Amino acid sequence: MRIAVVNETSAADKNPELVSALEGRGHEILNLGMKERGAQPELLYIHTGLMSALLLNLDRVDFVVGGCGTGQGYLNAAMQYPGVFCGHILTALDAWLFAQINGGNCVSLALNQGYGWAADVNLRFIFDRLFDVEWGAGYPPHRQAPQRAARETLKTLSGVTHRTMAEIVRDLPSDVIEPVLGYPGMAHWLRSESREHDELGRALAERRA
Amino acid sequence: MRIAVVNETSAADKNPELVSALEGRGHEILNLGMKERGAQPELLYIHTGLMSALLLNLDRVDFVVGGCGTGQGYLNAAMQYPGVFCGHILTALDAWLFAQINGGNCVSLALNQGYGWAADVNLRFIFDRLFDVEWGAGYPPHRQAPQRAARETLKTLSGVTHRTMAEIVRDLPSDVIEPVLGYPGMAHWLRSESREHDELGRALAERRA
Amino acid sequence: MRIAVVNETSAADKNPELVSALEGRGHEILNLGMKERGAQPELLYIHTGLMSALLLNLDRVDFVVGGCGTGQGYLNAAMQYPGVFCGHILTALDAWLFAQINGGNCVSLALNQGYGWAADVNLRFIFDRLFDVEWGAGYPPHRQAPQRAARETLKTLSGVTHRTMAEIVRDLPSDVIEPVLGYPGMAHWLRSESREHDELGRALAERRA
Amino acid sequence: MRIAVVNETSAADKNPELVSALEGRGHEILNLGMKERGAQPELLYIHTGLMSALLLNLDRVDFVVGGCGTGQGYLNAAMQYPGVFCGHILTALDAWLFAQINGGNCVSLALNQGYGWAADVNLRFIFDRLFDVEWGAGYPPHRQAPQRAARETLKTLSGVTHRTMAEIVRDLPSDVIEPVLGYPGMAHWLRSESREHDELGRALAERRA
Repeated sequence: MRIAVVNETSAADKNPELVSALEGRGHEILNLGMKERGAQPELLYIHTGLMSALLLNLDRVDFVVGGCGTGQGYLNAAMQYPGVFCGHILTALDAWLFAQINGGNCVSLALNQGYGWAADVNLRFIFDRLFDVEWGAGYPPHRQAPQRAARETLKTLSGVTHRTMAEIVRDLPSDVIEPVLGYPGMAHWLRSESREHDELGRALAERRA
Repeated sequence: MRIAVVNETSAADKNPELVSALEGRGHEILNLGMKERGAQPELLYIHTGLMSALLLNLDRVDFVVGGCGTGQGYLNAAMQYPGVFCGHILTALDAWLFAQINGGNCVSLALNQGYGWAADVNLRFIFDRLFDVEWGAGYPPHRQAPQRAARETLKTLSGVTHRTMAEIVRDLPSDVIEPVLGYPGMAHWLRSESREHDELGRALAERRA
Repeated sequence: MRIAVVNETSAADKNPELVSALEGRGHEILNLGMKERGAQPELLYIHTGLMSALLLNLDRVDFVVGGCGTGQGYLNAAMQYPGVFCGHILTALDAWLFAQINGGNCVSLALNQGYGWAADVNLRFIFDRLFDVEWGAGYPPHRQAPQRAARETLKTLSGVTHRTMAEIVRDLPSDVIEPVLGYPGMAHWLRSESREHDELGRALAERRA
Repeated sequence: MRIAVVNETSAADKNPELVSALEGRGHEILNLGMKERGAQPELLYIHTGLMSALLLNLDRVDFVVGGCGTGQGYLNAAMQYPGVFCGHILTALDAWLFAQINGGNCVSLALNQGYGWAADVNLRFIFDRLFDVEWGAGYPPHRQAPQRAARETLKTLSGVTHRTMAEIVRDLPSDVIEPVLGYPGMAHWLRSESREHDELGRALAERRA
């Protein structure tokens, strides 16, 4: 899997522990957000939420790991967009259940609240369980069918309730989109690679211009 | 405040404890979802998510308390819609921080996972803290300004990224909207009361027809 | 390792899940307490605490897994005796840290509070981490020496602060010791096997008489 | 109530937040352990455990608040002594249940593990609930009688299983007792005030000599 890590400013100091906990699992890790406290330019969860949505909607990554102080802000920001299904994950058990039951493509971590000593170990335990199970396998077994149906309905819903990413990109306030488009390294990752994303690619190009 | 409680099927047996934990605080509690395990008709989190969005977008309630087994499914369902800002709340501390920092209008509770003995007391502690602070006051004090800005940006974003509730209602799959419109008691609460919601009112009337 | 499981009455219904979570790890599991809710005779945590102390002090088991509704009662009961070092373990992280840092011989689990859906999975995760590390290895590495010193001091202390198990057995109130000595299966496990425990063996024999 | 706070070295930096969370409740707070990271002399949990036992057995305080990195070490150290009944308290719910059900005289807090941002608020919430209920009132009501019986048996047990504090004090290793007797301010608090504690007072005097 290709996994993006997107840290916003309030918990940017946790980025090295987060990346370290993800490494060594055979996944490609893209560390695309802030890497240390006080780095410039700064990203708010408003920005890492959009960043996540763009990376997922352009199929540039399979999964996004984000978060903020409590995990609630990034969760609410990322979930504004179509095609983002995000869990608020605090423990290994949360991870194991979310992967199987909800099969989302994004997790929001609490990176200040409750993040004390040995929280780096907890992150490792979370990822051990998140990537240890079959995505969307359902749990427990006898609930597989209704859980699969709920996931599919949720995907359909996301398309019905949201405007397209291209429309969204065209209308986003400048203070939301510009810090994302201009963030070091993002230009490379936000190129559209496939015909399928032509319209979103054009919308991004227009906003860059 | 007027608060709706919307329980889906997997944790419907927790409804009496949830309502009881909310009562006696001077709020008006509308118990609009399932009230006991196995009751008919059944509501999935797909349905309680939509129910929440309709109640909030019609200004029929100020706040919605929902949840599901882990809290992740309802959270993802409710967050598909415009104008819904939902926290995943497990402890009194989560509640206290969410109310002040995120100032959302919805919480998703884990009503099976971790819901053991004395979980009814924990619900009471959660609501004690959720309704004990000034909504959106910001915490800590020196972060009030950026937190307020983030909340306001999130509201703006929600309008940019979503279609209108009226458009959504017109296009929702029948298996999502019909169980909600037909749920006992909902017809009363989904009437539009103000001119402001005329379009959504008309869309709902069309779907009912 | 030889591991005893000792359930008291309030959470006796969790015994099958507890035993199941322990099995399949290459350890010998002795299921010595209550096995189902309402079984007779009943054991209180007062009794499972003493049972734990006897099994450990007779070297009949290497480790005891106990608990009660919140985990606090059994913990306090088991810790009354010499040679018992007990952690209050709620999560996989607690287990992993306790095994390495404290290297105790007993854990107390909360088997009602917070014990909701999927708590059986959490038990499995706890044991995965508890038995996954080198006992008393110390964590983090640079703290190994002081942690080892603290564990050794604690063992010395336990001998200084307590009377011997034989003296204790002779003076325990009947309502504490008799339900333990008479519990089905215990006679076998409380035989003294070695010369080293002669005095305790004699004290137990006297109480049985 | 008169409450002692006893911080050991690994979490000494949390002392100001701990004291601040306790203040303003009408209790007398004695801040008797370490007050900042790296202060000299250093106290280990081995020492704060003994300190707690002495203060409680001399009736100099009604309650002790201690802890360490995970809470497990201090818990095990304090519980070596007679007359100490200690809960491992992580949340407001733990506190509320422990006060009513176990009615102990000591709590051990996790002051590094899980101690992240807003943990000071969590401490305040813990103390709000710990001191908000009738000590040993029992919970739920229909369990009051057996819980009271268990608490009384535990007290009896503590006397049967332990040597007296005076005997213990006479035999404690120097590296355990000397740092406690010599800790700044302790001489005052370890004076025996009543005839009842004459023997312990003499034992302490001998060790000081």
